[in-house]
Amino acid sequence: MPKSRAIAIKKSRPRERFSYDPRKVLAKLEELGREILESVRQGRNPYFDIPTRGINNVYFDEKRKVIRMGDKLSRRYFLNVAHTRKFMQTLLISAYVKRLVSEGKHASLREAYYANKHTIPGTKENTFEDQRESDPIIEDLERMLGVLREEMHLTADRRGYIYGDIVIRDGEDEFNTSKLGMGGWAVPGTVEHLHFVEVNVDYALVVETAAMADRLIEEKFPKKEKALIIATQGQASRGVRRLIHRLHYEEGLPIIVFTDGDPYGWYIYSTIKQGSINLAYLSEKLATPEARFVGMTMDDIERYGLRNVTEKLKGVPPNKKGGPTGDYKRIMEEMNYPWFQNREWQRQLKMAVKMGVRIEQQALANKSLEFVARKYLPEKIERGELLP
Amino acid sequence: MPKSRAIAIKKSRPRERFSYDPRKVLAKLEELGREILESVRQGRNPYFDIPTRGINNVYFDEKRKVIRMGDKLSRRYFLNVAHTRKFMQTLLISAYVKRLVSEGKHASLREAYYANKHTIPGTKENTFEDQRESDPIIEDLERMLGVLREEMHLTADRRGYIYGDIVIRDGEDEFNTSKLGMGGWAVPGTVEHLHFVEVNVDYALVVETAAMADRLIEEKFPKKEKALIIATQGQASRGVRRLIHRLHYEEGLPIIVFTDGDPYGWYIYSTIKQGSINLAYLSEKLATPEARFVGMTMDDIERYGLRNVTEKLKGVPPNKKGGPTGDYKRIMEEMNYPWFQNREWQRQLKMAVKMGVRIEQQALANKSLEFVARKYLPEKIERGELLP
Repeated sequence: MPKSRAIAIKKSRPRERFSYDPRKVLAKLEELGREILESVRQGRNPYFDIPTRGINNVYFDEKRKVIRMGDKLSRRYFLNVAHTRKFMQTLLISAYVKRLVSEGKHASLREAYYANKHTIPGTKENTFEDQRESDPIIEDLERMLGVLREEMHLTADRRGYIYGDIVIRDGEDEFNTSKLGMGGWAVPGTVEHLHFVEVNVDYALVVETAAMADRLIEEKFPKKEKALIIATQGQASRGVRRLIHRLHYEEGLPIIVFTDGDPYGWYIYSTIKQGSINLAYLSEKLATPEARFVGMTMDDIERYGLRNVTEKLKGVPPNKKGGPTGDYKRIMEEMNYPWFQNREWQRQLKMAVKMGVRIEQQALANKSLEFVARKYLPEKIERGELLP
Repeated sequence: MPKSRAIAIKKSRPRERFSYDPRKVLAKLEELGREILESVRQGRNPYFDIPTRGINNVYFDEKRKVIRMGDKLSRRYFLNVAHTRKFMQTLLISAYVKRLVSEGKHASLREAYYANKHTIPGTKENTFEDQRESDPIIEDLERMLGVLREEMHLTADRRGYIYGDIVIRDGEDEFNTSKLGMGGWAVPGTVEHLHFVEVNVDYALVVETAAMADRLIEEKFPKKEKALIIATQGQASRGVRRLIHRLHYEEGLPIIVFTDGDPYGWYIYSTIKQGSINLAYLSEKLATPEARFVGMTMDDIERYGLRNVTEKLKGVPPNKKGGPTGDYKRIMEEMNYPWFQNREWQRQLKMAVKMGVRIEQQALANKSLEFVARKYLPEKIERGELLP
């Protein structure tokens, strides 16, 4: 049933506030250090309690609609041959993070690894042999302290850009992301410190491919529809996911996601909406369960006459010998996601398996270059034809 | 022998001018169309002459120091069963490009494929079955007309961002790329139309990884050293390569490249400097043979005490059974590049094989986060310690 645009994409009341506060992170680290020091002084065996990783300590919170971490803990002792190395590494990284945050500096995960790799004097032992040793320690710290690694000034790799009538303050600079030509503003690895000075848009449209984002910019869609374009350039980076979360919860912006109509596109949507199992402990800060999906859907193929520009799914269908594999396997997995347990998504996913095809955003160019900006998106968004 | 910075990175006199002119492209397309039409009218068999692709029609121009296309042509006839389909496709894409350029619109390669795919009335034949059919036609057109596909408004995928004290005009917008917070300006797929309004930097530093570019931005390197940072985020996109070319030839900016010390990093340098064999016909507009290389070099490992943070090369060395493979094979190939036929590069590449290690940019974090910005780069650049 069509709703008026005002209802379909109404802004919500802000439910979170700008929360970046380096002092809080420092206080948590100091608390951690004090406890260890206390244990040593009292001749006890110092330890950390770390929430357990892995699928066994993860669940879907039906009420808040996010993947969350359970309350299982593992204890890491200093005086335990199996734990000592990791205990040492945890302390090293904690001290490093404290230095970073105090000095207002950021480091990449790779830099953090290199900066903390050294040979322990008097031995041939290295503190870290590989980044595969330091990354999990950083994840442990995120879980232990309940802060994002970005809040600890450890930055993830960056990808994605934005374009639209919002004014951002980043340090001493203040700029409108719709005044940067065709380029747009490159989203940095860390967005914690950004201030949204003005938000003159009605919603944010998250777009999978750069080519489609650029199409919409060229068609002046952001201005005509009062939309902010967020180009993820494939899977959304942590920076982009956090930006989406903040725009939704701090500024009340409705989030509408636009991906290819295929298992990869739906997975991108899934991650923006619910977080990933790997990073379950971050869902509350990275996920945006209220995001909705505009397309591409399987229904679009008939409705807009796109059958000629579909592509075949790869792999073996579930009803064939050896199946499901490839794209089909992925679709079957997505059918089991808790957040896809609704009529609309089950229908789409089943249709995809039955039709055996995928449909790309850019296939809309088959109608005309303007089609997506003048008809497809405005029509679906006006009418609130969005998947949950 | 150390040179003063003024000599090492002196700006050169501009040797090219802003050259984007859609009317030229339209004139060439019209000329093409007129010839075909004329042939048809005179009852002759219409054809295109297309410069031959592939390694046999490519050579290294020693004087101009770029990979160039030879003068071999192949003729594509309309009335030749083996040619007809491609002839039809060439005309379709030419007409499409003419429409794009006339209307001032851009399309991605993917959109161009979808837009031109249709079933020929009265048959079951599609004009294009796959993007692998349309891409080569676009390359043919580039070669035939001697224009970049970007000049035909067909945009390549975008990647990379810039940060530094230059003012760019893009359409109605004018902005300084050092006033955009930590983010920087995202480089669009097409940079033909950009105007450089002010260039208040002494040189451009092209950086392989986003993490290193962000490090330099955080350390205020662009301001202190009057440098423009260009982050390629891996292999440089066509947009970034064209931007580098334009900044060098139109603005006289020295180009200094900073990659990991490994075969992939040196390949990135190679492509920026000389173009790639695949795209030989574009070298004159995309390559910057006068670019120089600051690091990482194999000498850096000893000089800055980084042995502990090197990584082993992958594959089998050339002197072992079954070798060279992997990284070693790549290095041996690079040793044969015409532009690496000099003492300095042969020495580096031989050292890499001998030492069997690679060294990343971010390994410099092992000294300190500031080290790269305060010591490593300024020292090497001041002294002109750059590889050719």
